[in-house]
Amino acid sequence: MRVGFYQFAPILREVEINLGKVETAIRHTRADLVVLPEMCFTGYMLSSRDELAKFAEPVPTGPICCRMVDLCRERNTSLAFGLAEQDADRIYNSAVLVTNSGDVHVYRKSHLFLDEKDIFDPGDTPFPVFRLDGVGIGMLVCFDYIFPESGRALALNGAQVVCHPSNLVLDYAQWMTLTRAAENRVFWIVANRTGSETSAEKTLSFTGRSQVVAPTGKLLYRAGTDTEELPVIDIDPRDALDKMATPRNHLLEDRRTDLYPR
Amino acid sequence: MRVGFYQFAPILREVEINLGKVETAIRHTRADLVVLPEMCFTGYMLSSRDELAKFAEPVPTGPICCRMVDLCRERNTSLAFGLAEQDADRIYNSAVLVTNSGDVHVYRKSHLFLDEKDIFDPGDTPFPVFRLDGVGIGMLVCFDYIFPESGRALALNGAQVVCHPSNLVLDYAQWMTLTRAAENRVFWIVANRTGSETSAEKTLSFTGRSQVVAPTGKLLYRAGTDTEELPVIDIDPRDALDKMATPRNHLLEDRRTDLYPR
Repeated sequence: MRVGFYQFAPILREVEINLGKVETAIRHTRADLVVLPEMCFTGYMLSSRDELAKFAEPVPTGPICCRMVDLCRERNTSLAFGLAEQDADRIYNSAVLVTNSGDVHVYRKSHLFLDEKDIFDPGDTPFPVFRLDGVGIGMLVCFDYIFPESGRALALNGAQVVCHPSNLVLDYAQWMTLTRAAENRVFWIVANRTGSETSAEKTLSFTGRSQVVAPTGKLLYRAGTDTEELPVIDIDPRDALDKMATPRNHLLEDRRTDLYPR
Repeated sequence: MRVGFYQFAPILREVEINLGKVETAIRHTRADLVVLPEMCFTGYMLSSRDELAKFAEPVPTGPICCRMVDLCRERNTSLAFGLAEQDADRIYNSAVLVTNSGDVHVYRKSHLFLDEKDIFDPGDTPFPVFRLDGVGIGMLVCFDYIFPESGRALALNGAQVVCHPSNLVLDYAQWMTLTRAAENRVFWIVANRTGSETSAEKTLSFTGRSQVVAPTGKLLYRAGTDTEELPVIDIDPRDALDKMATPRNHLLEDRRTDLYPR
């Protein structure tokens, strides 16, 4: 399975430019699955719930989703990316998986970061796992990773590859996701963005260093801090089916759920 | 609070020698809390359940516990250490906390490693936290760390300092416990041993590199791979009461327990 990520700097509010940039990049790539950053077509710092609502779209019928379905079919590839999802009067910070056959799946960010609490609704999708050519694919969005329960839930639900669209501003994720991969024996693809965005109140600088991690916790590839790149590497997702930390220790079955608090 | 660990190479079956070694080291130390390795008075590779039973003792009335109570009172210090605990017909791989006032608390390893499953009973103590001069102290034993649920349970139960007696043979713990400390905002003291032990079937080499980690995940001190040392550093356990990863994100309260599977 050829997997990768596209690390770049989306331009705030320039949806058409960002869409074109992604389409061009994907048309120059041969991969089975590419992960893009969180909110990668709109940019991140939309200033209010009202402005967010203008950029949010329903899944799978919205314009960004439709463009990505066309792109995935054209290129026989699958994409995982972040967008603002409108559902009736709710808006979620979602990750969408569009498969090579045009299926569209969604995960809604469970753990909202900082001021996202003012404009997004908290997710209500309990860590679903989707099949892609027989491989279990899970998604998280950015800050979800800091809670070990997120990755664990995906592993328990059968994820072999975790797609992790992000707009990281802290520097925890790059080392913590090594642990996340290893404690669950899953592949982990962090797609972070680069560049910065500025609002009236603040500037956010994104930390790049997107990465692909093996189920052992080994770093398979890490991007630069400021580079635009779309690396693709070969993985065998079956490696993520082996949950044995030792010949006698299964990382999921050895859990002592009788002793853990809620 | 002055905390540390004693990293050394216990000699298998030489309880009196190991006890004397620890007593000498502690008598040359001024500290509030020192963590010792797993099974540090008996050594690790006792060959059978029968042999283990000969070295196991009841807590708090067994001879090792009594010696440590005397030592802690004499030195006005507290010690956390590993031993084989006998309780009726059961034997646990336990961590014992002896306080400066002579109180004795116990935690029984929840996640047995490899062939420990043949000779130990699995622990039945759901991650208790004990007060030491007002500070919440939790304990884990070695392999427990690989399960994020262990550290999480201690944090939820109020631990500020996690004492982690270990006999590590893999190399995950030294980087994973940085994540464990940061995801829970607790101090984490790994007391690993050095040296090796050999049985009829195999040789185990222990990986040293004991460490103290801050609630930010920052490494405060790491020992060498093969050194005998008893470092003591100053920490402020109140740092572990602040669970805010950002001004609006509490690492325990932001958990989405409504979405997590068991």
